[in-house]
Amino acid sequence: MKMGTDPNLQFAVEGLHARYAHALDADRLEEWPQFFSENGRYRIATAENEERGLPLPVLSAEGRGMMRDRIQSLRHANIYEPQRYRHIVSSILIEGIDRHTVRSVASFLVVRVMQDGQTLLFASGRYLDRIALAPEPLYAERVVVCDSRRFDTLLAIPL
Amino acid sequence: MKMGTDPNLQFAVEGLHARYAHALDADRLEEWPQFFSENGRYRIATAENEERGLPLPVLSAEGRGMMRDRIQSLRHANIYEPQRYRHIVSSILIEGIDRHTVRSVASFLVVRVMQDGQTLLFASGRYLDRIALAPEPLYAERVVVCDSRRFDTLLAIPL
Amino acid sequence: MKMGTDPNLQFAVEGLHARYAHALDADRLEEWPQFFSENGRYRIATAENEERGLPLPVLSAEGRGMMRDRIQSLRHANIYEPQRYRHIVSSILIEGIDRHTVRSVASFLVVRVMQDGQTLLFASGRYLDRIALAPEPLYAERVVVCDSRRFDTLLAIPL
Repeated sequence: MKMGTDPNLQFAVEGLHARYAHALDADRLEEWPQFFSENGRYRIATAENEERGLPLPVLSAEGRGMMRDRIQSLRHANIYEPQRYRHIVSSILIEGIDRHTVRSVASFLVVRVMQDGQTLLFASGRYLDRIALAPEPLYAERVVVCDSRRFDTLLAIPL
Repeated sequence: MKMGTDPNLQFAVEGLHARYAHALDADRLEEWPQFFSENGRYRIATAENEERGLPLPVLSAEGRGMMRDRIQSLRHANIYEPQRYRHIVSSILIEGIDRHTVRSVASFLVVRVMQDGQTLLFASGRYLDRIALAPEPLYAERVVVCDSRRFDTLLAIPL
Repeated sequence: MKMGTDPNLQFAVEGLHARYAHALDADRLEEWPQFFSENGRYRIATAENEERGLPLPVLSAEGRGMMRDRIQSLRHANIYEPQRYRHIVSSILIEGIDRHTVRSVASFLVVRVMQDGQTLLFASGRYLDRIALAPEPLYAERVVVCDSRRFDTLLAIPL
């Protein structure tokens, strides 16, 4: 516990998280891969599996190409009815820094707003991130650890 | 995407949002107009109508005078039973700056706590703000874009 | 309302709140007393009782020793079934500073994730804090003012 957080670094991380959340919530899913570095990794897991060391992600993608594919099939498969998401992100903490990357953790809560207007708690959990700083802040790895073991099997959009 | 956020500017925006939220949540509604500049504008809209370009705000007010009137009628009409709100605001992003004003976006979630203690998700959405910086940060315009199309028709307090 | 927030001070407070929330959400309850100064005070109250000036905390503890005891009995009594919490904290505002301590207010929302995966709104409210800055930021006093008057009587973990 120390007071020496670098404001620019903290804001770089917070800004990346904020842009990511707004892109998803505005259904600009095609931008999603661009928040990752070229070989960036994305994974959704449950807290339970993470604690047991079970390498069973609910979903994973490696590299922007695979992410683009995922978004494309999402769009074409047309599996999801119109709905909105709202990400709330807080308690963003930088846990480690080396020359090129930052490790950070943050809490999230996502609500889902259905077509008929109903608002539901959809997911909560932690983001565990490794962020490459140059030339601009991008996720080298984003692990989404959901608190709940229960998932909507469609799990349409990235968290 | 860059790292050059001015910490003072970011904090000015975050501080204004925080004071606004605490005032509403503490039922200090009479302070509400003072968060706006003299001719400030306030509007609640739905995401659906915004996307369709329909100029049909759920509610709007122009200038502190109209805002004061609204709060007064709210108090006198006595239409609302005792209840509490809690605003959670996150992902505050500065999107543009000119000499006198800042444009920013933020996500919000509001829960409503009823008299009997029940807590409900009340609203979620985006704040789209234009903020005048001098002599102190104030909203020149605050547009509240709600994710849901469904509203409590009373919609007692400002969001 | 002014723009002169000291970034280091703001981050010190935000960082403390963030570490506190992550410790609780990760079930690292044994760390809880260490977020307080040796004689730190912790109290959970309801907004209703606070407004009426009723000194009836739902729960209170004075000093790390009493906090440790509370966590120990929580662990041993085994009264709580496995469940997770997720704290969302926002609108962190520094309200006063003197030479050694900072007074601040923040909003919180806590969801509880049950064993079967169900996610519920558990509590919302305000943190009213007095934070000692040196040698490191610690709570001299944390008052948790819950919006709802209704409580889960077990109220297993600290908020």
